[in-house]
Amino acid sequence: MTTPKAVLLIADGLGDRPIKELGNKTPLEAAEKPNLNRVALEGECGLMDPIAVGIRAGSDTSHLAILGYDPYKYYTGRGPFEAAGIGMDVKKGDIAFRCNFSTVDDNMVITDRRAGRITSGTDQLAAAINGMKLSNGIEVIFKESVAHRGALILRAPDLSADITDTDPHHEGTAVMTSKACDPNNASAAKTAQAVNEFVRKSYEVLKDHPVNKERIAQGLNPANIILPRGGGIGPHMNSFECETGLKAACVAETGLINGVARYVGMDITEVPGATGGLDSNVMNIGKAIVEQLASHDFVLCNVKGADLGGHDGNPQAKIDTIKKLDEMVGYLVENMPKGTYLVITADHSTPCAIKDHSGDPVAIVFWGEGVRTDKCQQFDERSVTSGGLGRIRGIDVTKIITQLMNVQEKFGA
Amino acid sequence: MTTPKAVLLIADGLGDRPIKELGNKTPLEAAEKPNLNRVALEGECGLMDPIAVGIRAGSDTSHLAILGYDPYKYYTGRGPFEAAGIGMDVKKGDIAFRCNFSTVDDNMVITDRRAGRITSGTDQLAAAINGMKLSNGIEVIFKESVAHRGALILRAPDLSADITDTDPHHEGTAVMTSKACDPNNASAAKTAQAVNEFVRKSYEVLKDHPVNKERIAQGLNPANIILPRGGGIGPHMNSFECETGLKAACVAETGLINGVARYVGMDITEVPGATGGLDSNVMNIGKAIVEQLASHDFVLCNVKGADLGGHDGNPQAKIDTIKKLDEMVGYLVENMPKGTYLVITADHSTPCAIKDHSGDPVAIVFWGEGVRTDKCQQFDERSVTSGGLGRIRGIDVTKIITQLMNVQEKFGA
Repeated sequence: MTTPKAVLLIADGLGDRPIKELGNKTPLEAAEKPNLNRVALEGECGLMDPIAVGIRAGSDTSHLAILGYDPYKYYTGRGPFEAAGIGMDVKKGDIAFRCNFSTVDDNMVITDRRAGRITSGTDQLAAAINGMKLSNGIEVIFKESVAHRGALILRAPDLSADITDTDPHHEGTAVMTSKACDPNNASAAKTAQAVNEFVRKSYEVLKDHPVNKERIAQGLNPANIILPRGGGIGPHMNSFECETGLKAACVAETGLINGVARYVGMDITEVPGATGGLDSNVMNIGKAIVEQLASHDFVLCNVKGADLGGHDGNPQAKIDTIKKLDEMVGYLVENMPKGTYLVITADHSTPCAIKDHSGDPVAIVFWGEGVRTDKCQQFDERSVTSGGLGRIRGIDVTKIITQLMNVQEKFGA
Repeated sequence: MTTPKAVLLIADGLGDRPIKELGNKTPLEAAEKPNLNRVALEGECGLMDPIAVGIRAGSDTSHLAILGYDPYKYYTGRGPFEAAGIGMDVKKGDIAFRCNFSTVDDNMVITDRRAGRITSGTDQLAAAINGMKLSNGIEVIFKESVAHRGALILRAPDLSADITDTDPHHEGTAVMTSKACDPNNASAAKTAQAVNEFVRKSYEVLKDHPVNKERIAQGLNPANIILPRGGGIGPHMNSFECETGLKAACVAETGLINGVARYVGMDITEVPGATGGLDSNVMNIGKAIVEQLASHDFVLCNVKGADLGGHDGNPQAKIDTIKKLDEMVGYLVENMPKGTYLVITADHSTPCAIKDHSGDPVAIVFWGEGVRTDKCQQFDERSVTSGGLGRIRGIDVTKIITQLMNVQEKFGA
């Protein structure tokens, strides 16, 4: 008997609350979704709290939990996963940050947090920064990301992410001085000092860089400083394959999710037309999943659109994404190798009324050979409460998948 | 947009088991309660285990959990919360006890554990005790409470609550000697020695006190000794406002609940006619809640009556309290500011058949903007099992409230 395969499809921010304009239905309840309903009918359904009951999850912490890694143990900030997401090799003990290229005036007052949403030349600016040495032998690794974004790694023994940010998150305000959250924490004090030195040196290096001279000549805001934020310490995490025995791939639209997946050793796939926006070609994502199943036991997939609808407070955008997801699920059910398990859920709710993540639980369904099918016939937040799973947590999901697949080691005799 | 408000209404000991005389209904199932049922119909319902499945909760441990403080971390005994409940300032590391004024004979045999249920003069007796110095520089802070009750704080560095009681809980028995539970625990040995010294000195100070001479002259039992019990170490707890961002008030009928609330920095409210007995004016409690909402974001309310019915094994008393609670809930729904969330539950079951707390889960309902209304149409222990919440724990309750109110910080990005 060959090992079965599994697909874990996470519809980012799918969960919602009842919306008056939809007749007090959630977008998932209101949407036409014959394929999702078929999977619910043939599968086992329930509610899932990504972290724990009532906790507002981020996408990163939720994906960690759903993949079986306790975020309270491994997560101190977004930085390491952002950096991994753009292909940087984050090592245990590194302090990694997401960064903006920004514009400051001569007094270090921020005039544009996004440096005119710069679209080219950041690779040259990054090259001028990368490899810089700071005091105390701290090594700088820097890489540009899309537009005005980048990621920074500070590498040295005995650093700490327990520091304050330099980015005031407001224009018209001066760059802030990073400090140790606890003044008695020498590692944090050293790290904060390094961040301040990095920010100051980035300005010295970038202000007269040819890319910026050219931008100024064109009337554009120069990308003359780099502001790190969201620092976290690189955790040591066993690979997903080591934890589960499953060779895994990730098909996702955002750097953050790719970063989580890369951090646990999954192969990352680029999908043509998968923009991470509402215009994304979701069917192409489905095709990529089926392709990856040829060489992998497990495929993690994240589709971003529903979350954008939630953040925008736009129920129709959510419904439109659900329709595309539904078509993709129809394709998966028909085209995945026989014996593949399909698990569909969300990483958190993003209610249109809140325009941000909430702590409301999300629907989940397990579909495939041997699952205990239940009375639930529709895939939505309230129908699944009649399902057989009851109310589970994110950290349970991969355990359920590996036990269904019969690849999990027995605990005891 | 203004921050929404929330009321957390805890009907003490409300949960019960099916009772033959009520046609195998619980008191909550048997009672007329149109307003509670309306809230269930319009809200989201479920079962709640105050501490964890099957655990018999106290009112103090349950309230701690429901407010978001893990009682396994913060609770070592009832004393600190009793002391806080009568306005004593318990500090981290203090060992606090609830106490009885009792009567002993010359051989230190207890003849009356409640000193004739003494009703006056305990303030003078307390004044004679308060401020006493014990060996090892241990400071005594003592205050009388209602009737024969009081509270004691022992203050010094390095004390421990891990000691045995001096109160044998039986009359006709000699006062016991407090001992360290673990003989190798020097802090506990020191504390036990201080308790024994305190008890002995209380007898020396009180036996010839004028208040007691007068009692003896009147043929009343003298309050000639103080017996501490329920010792616990004062925990460091962040304030509720610090944890949630919500300015909170407590409207409760008992010192213990007020003590828990005061310990986490809530404002305490006195309500005229709120006796803590079956005769309590529950509607006045409702009015006090609405008044407190004018100046607070969150109001915790505890109504005691149902618990008394349970302890007395009196289902009708429970039903009568439920009727009063129901009228109060009707008042709240009509009079709370628009947008206020209402959460109704119990701190534990007190089944009439048991006459004490049990580990049976209790009903809970969340009512307000955006909750996922479910099929549950009645508020009782068994109807709520068809609700959308499933089975949650006490520690989840405040998390759910703050995420519904959208005031909780996100964990992750």
